[in-house]
Amino acid sequence: MKLHGFFRSTASWRVRIACALKGVSLDHQSYKLRRGDQRSDAYLALNPQGLVPALELDDGTVLTQSLAIIEWLEETIPEPHLLPSDPIARAKVRAFALAIAADIHPVQNLKVLFALAGHGLDEAAVNGWAATVITEGLGACEKLIADQDGPYCFGDTVGLADICLVPQIGNAKRFGVDLAAFPKLMAVDAACAQLPAFADAVPGRQADAE
Amino acid sequence: MKLHGFFRSTASWRVRIACALKGVSLDHQSYKLRRGDQRSDAYLALNPQGLVPALELDDGTVLTQSLAIIEWLEETIPEPHLLPSDPIARAKVRAFALAIAADIHPVQNLKVLFALAGHGLDEAAVNGWAATVITEGLGACEKLIADQDGPYCFGDTVGLADICLVPQIGNAKRFGVDLAAFPKLMAVDAACAQLPAFADAVPGRQADAE
Repeated sequence: MKLHGFFRSTASWRVRIACALKGVSLDHQSYKLRRGDQRSDAYLALNPQGLVPALELDDGTVLTQSLAIIEWLEETIPEPHLLPSDPIARAKVRAFALAIAADIHPVQNLKVLFALAGHGLDEAAVNGWAATVITEGLGACEKLIADQDGPYCFGDTVGLADICLVPQIGNAKRFGVDLAAFPKLMAVDAACAQLPAFADAVPGRQADAE
Repeated sequence: MKLHGFFRSTASWRVRIACALKGVSLDHQSYKLRRGDQRSDAYLALNPQGLVPALELDDGTVLTQSLAIIEWLEETIPEPHLLPSDPIARAKVRAFALAIAADIHPVQNLKVLFALAGHGLDEAAVNGWAATVITEGLGACEKLIADQDGPYCFGDTVGLADICLVPQIGNAKRFGVDLAAFPKLMAVDAACAQLPAFADAVPGRQADAE
């Protein structure tokens, strides 16, 4: 399988972790997002959204949207589970994942930051926008796992929530967010960093890292 | 079950449709979003994100995030299916749903529009932002179903993709988006409007409609 992505894209990062946890090895094709590679005709033919990642299967089928890709991995390679078996527990994990993947990341991604700059916001205001969105969002995430005991977001099995959290923490650091307010999230981040699937997926270890 | 929501919230609207399709009757509690009801202490205790919707089950369990709620409905009330059975087909439907729920809606929702106004954008610029995000996003969605024959997004069974599309078309109309460029999406919207579950879920038919 080939992952069309970018080392720093948090959505690509999620898929890298999930594939590693499932034992799926990936070829990688890199798209420099600031240069707009993801809006080339060739890539738009793969993914009309013009966003990374896209997962190209060996038969040519192309899957998009990191959470949809991860659900597909979960359905086709059940072990190790990335979602618990109980429906309520699954809903809680998915809600946490969506609190990041739908409510933080899309509002602070490069596309939105470029658009803000186009509306006249200076660099400090644009970066401040990202930091505010991340701080508010992680504040809610900290509360969503307030009754959990770790070491991972939802107990002693790593899964979808952790896969979304760790890259978002990475983005938080890039934007200078004060992470001291999120002790549970940071403990999860530290626990995940001990796992090879997470350690190998960090942006700095990718072939296209700048 | 009680749905904590708002008549105009597209995420609440999705859950209204899904529950109707599954035959689940709902009590409703309304939160005036412009007034900030969703940030009251009472509501934050239910949902730390301070966003609607939240689905409160009869035993007091609270589920959040519309897509997580709908996946829970699908897992606990399998019929009628809102997702196909084939894993690739499921991934395509989920990707379409996320293209709306993660990449359009969060970037044009009230919270972001308020923040833009706070950064000095005037009303025309703020509404233009929303219209641009929706236009670009629906353009990609139109292409994601280019090879589909209808009447619904993915064939002759209504499901998760349609549940996300119809409220987003509603938002597009509010922001004056030119919908003529999206003939396949509009045909799906028209087909869904014939179904009671969709017709009854429109904002204008809710008790809290203004």
